Amino acid sequence: MSDAAPVDVARLVALVRADPPLVHCLTNSVVREVTANVLLAAGAAPAMVDHPAEAGDFAAVASGVLVNVGNPTAEQIDGMHAAIASAREHDTPWVLDPVAVGGIGMRTRLATAWLEQAPAAIRANASETVALAGAGVGGRGVDSTDSVSAAEASARRLVGLTGGVVAVSGPRDLVVSGSGAAARLTWVESGHPLLQKVVGTGCALGALTAAYLGAARGAGVDDHDAVVAAHAHVGAAGTRAARDARGPGSFAVAWIDALHHLSPEDIADLATVSDG
Amino acid sequence: MSDAAPVDVARLVALVRADPPLVHCLTNSVVREVTANVLLAAGAAPAMVDHPAEAGDFAAVASGVLVNVGNPTAEQIDGMHAAIASAREHDTPWVLDPVAVGGIGMRTRLATAWLEQAPAAIRANASETVALAGAGVGGRGVDSTDSVSAAEASARRLVGLTGGVVAVSGPRDLVVSGSGAAARLTWVESGHPLLQKVVGTGCALGALTAAYLGAARGAGVDDHDAVVAAHAHVGAAGTRAARDARGPGSFAVAWIDALHHLSPEDIADLATVSDG
Amino acid sequence: MSDAAPVDVARLVALVRADPPLVHCLTNSVVREVTANVLLAAGAAPAMVDHPAEAGDFAAVASGVLVNVGNPTAEQIDGMHAAIASAREHDTPWVLDPVAVGGIGMRTRLATAWLEQAPAAIRANASETVALAGAGVGGRGVDSTDSVSAAEASARRLVGLTGGVVAVSGPRDLVVSGSGAAARLTWVESGHPLLQKVVGTGCALGALTAAYLGAARGAGVDDHDAVVAAHAHVGAAGTRAARDARGPGSFAVAWIDALHHLSPEDIADLATVSDG
Repeated sequence: MSDAAPVDVARLVALVRADPPLVHCLTNSVVREVTANVLLAAGAAPAMVDHPAEAGDFAAVASGVLVNVGNPTAEQIDGMHAAIASAREHDTPWVLDPVAVGGIGMRTRLATAWLEQAPAAIRANASETVALAGAGVGGRGVDSTDSVSAAEASARRLVGLTGGVVAVSGPRDLVVSGSGAAARLTWVESGHPLLQKVVGTGCALGALTAAYLGAARGAGVDDHDAVVAAHAHVGAAGTRAARDARGPGSFAVAWIDALHHLSPEDIADLATVSDG
Repeated sequence: MSDAAPVDVARLVALVRADPPLVHCLTNSVVREVTANVLLAAGAAPAMVDHPAEAGDFAAVASGVLVNVGNPTAEQIDGMHAAIASAREHDTPWVLDPVAVGGIGMRTRLATAWLEQAPAAIRANASETVALAGAGVGGRGVDSTDSVSAAEASARRLVGLTGGVVAVSGPRDLVVSGSGAAARLTWVESGHPLLQKVVGTGCALGALTAAYLGAARGAGVDDHDAVVAAHAHVGAAGTRAARDARGPGSFAVAWIDALHHLSPEDIADLATVSDG
Repeated sequence: MSDAAPVDVARLVALVRADPPLVHCLTNSVVREVTANVLLAAGAAPAMVDHPAEAGDFAAVASGVLVNVGNPTAEQIDGMHAAIASAREHDTPWVLDPVAVGGIGMRTRLATAWLEQAPAAIRANASETVALAGAGVGGRGVDSTDSVSAAEASARRLVGLTGGVVAVSGPRDLVVSGSGAAARLTWVESGHPLLQKVVGTGCALGALTAAYLGAARGAGVDDHDAVVAAHAHVGAAGTRAARDARGPGSFAVAWIDALHHLSPEDIADLATVSDG
């Protein structure tokens, strides 16, 4: 592994809030509202523009782009192609969230083809990671039947295929990037089981990952650190939110509050980040 | 009426939570997020997959399917056809929610045609029930201008047409099924008027009905009992949520919490279930 | 300016609640749920029907129609055309919300063409107002980079082009209508900065504007007054909600509660309405 400096989570949180990155989200129709609210609460600016005649233009002015295949329409897929092409043309980081890949043929083919389009990051659960790397059949829907550790080799393979960062979400999140002497592996320990009982928490994390990538590139910070910080922000807010929650409803409200009001230092304290 | 045993609501709640049924929802774009959150809170697992190239495959692995015509697109309608066909092929229970049928021609024709596709249950308000049975003109949007009692004959007619269970939502919910000596009629009394002030509570109940049907069939429990228990679960959580609510915003949050934290016994206690 | 009587906000709030106007919303997919919940909480009745085969029929029975171009699909645009034509045919007020117009070509052309379709009101932020009037390039997404005061001339120009009311949202909202001796200008001062941290608050205000227009026309009240009252209702609820909020999550919940429980007199007290 590399001897990179520890990730400065607090600095990255402050960067996002100081100059809100505009995140263009082409995401599934179930989670658009919560995704936008998470970006706003965390300090970023959301925009959802799916029409093929608009998606390319909009990606051109965004700081980061999210492509989430959770419930695509034919028209949205055309918009995704346009947004990815535009992001690449403008050197804008784009994030792939391969929801339920492996279990369903169409989206598996789509996401697999996009591995050649240099996503700056892939955010997935363990089953999706294994399936996207070609080693498994995926979970059922957004569930994950594989463990994060078991997905490490698949995540490494995806890093090799894309050249980007790969993040595997779970009880502990795994972030890997690079190869050879530049290989990095970071664990992020934070969050709470109630995050699994609120729809869109993982999808919104994908969007926030695009926000952090946008902010980090503007400041010359490494993509790997940006992905780690996004996971720490979401997880720390989950840890805090669980203190007063009486169920997934009040947890979701408190989580949005915490994404907004936790200081950069609190976030760094509430998430345990360790290089592997 | 039949001499069936009383519905064991608590047992069914425990069944859903013990082995979360995967519910494939083809539902309207207004309520997808709340529907998913209700399923998660209640103990089930949601998935929304509308694309015609994916919907059939996904219905094949689900425990229950919901088809809600609240705001259909042409592409989603194709997906609904595929999902219904797949559900029937795999003997998976599917639920029809005929939102605003009667008031609008296109969806009325769709829902009427689907009566021949053996939905395991229909969940509707009184006006929609009357309209779908061919006896009325429906409400305006999701409002109901007919009373539940007035819809009993129409509900019976739909049972005759489909062979499934028909549930009419209202201040008291009516659940009917069977014919002749096997005819059953159950009233479920629970809930709170604030449920009408939060969008998607009825639509989410349709999804939870599919979840309960999936769990019940796995345990050899009658479909009628499953539909009753789904209504009791939603209503009991509404009753509990109203205790501390200051308006529809805090009510919606408390309702999700209560769907999650009420014990099976509390749910059975908070909903009055009586055979007619 | 005209010597119109001061706007009676409390009377208009009571009118909406006494006879809930049905609002047909053709709006973007990010904010459909929150828009419906705002309408329900405020006392109106929401319906979202986008399919071209249904949108015209539905607009014919609505009290008001909203057209919001935040994330259109090709099919929804066809539905918008049908709904606008139907609204005009039935003399039903329709509201245009030109989200992100100026920054994106397709929607700018759409919204500009609809200026000839006599929208009863346009609700926009300052940048969108300036762009739609042909004097600027718009903001990025839903942000506004122009000030409300700077948009007054553009708002006047849009009044001239449409004959309707134009409302510019911001820290203070500006409502203008009429020309010559009938020209009116009203400022509405209320709200809270956290409204900007919750997605859909502006879009929902557009929907509520359609509700107020529907109720006002039924009572012979001027459109200008209806638009002012809608803004006062949303803003007053924001002011109240901020009292106990710990962040945008709890603020959003309290805002929905306040839309519902504030009395007409409280709303009139919490919003400062002044003629310019």
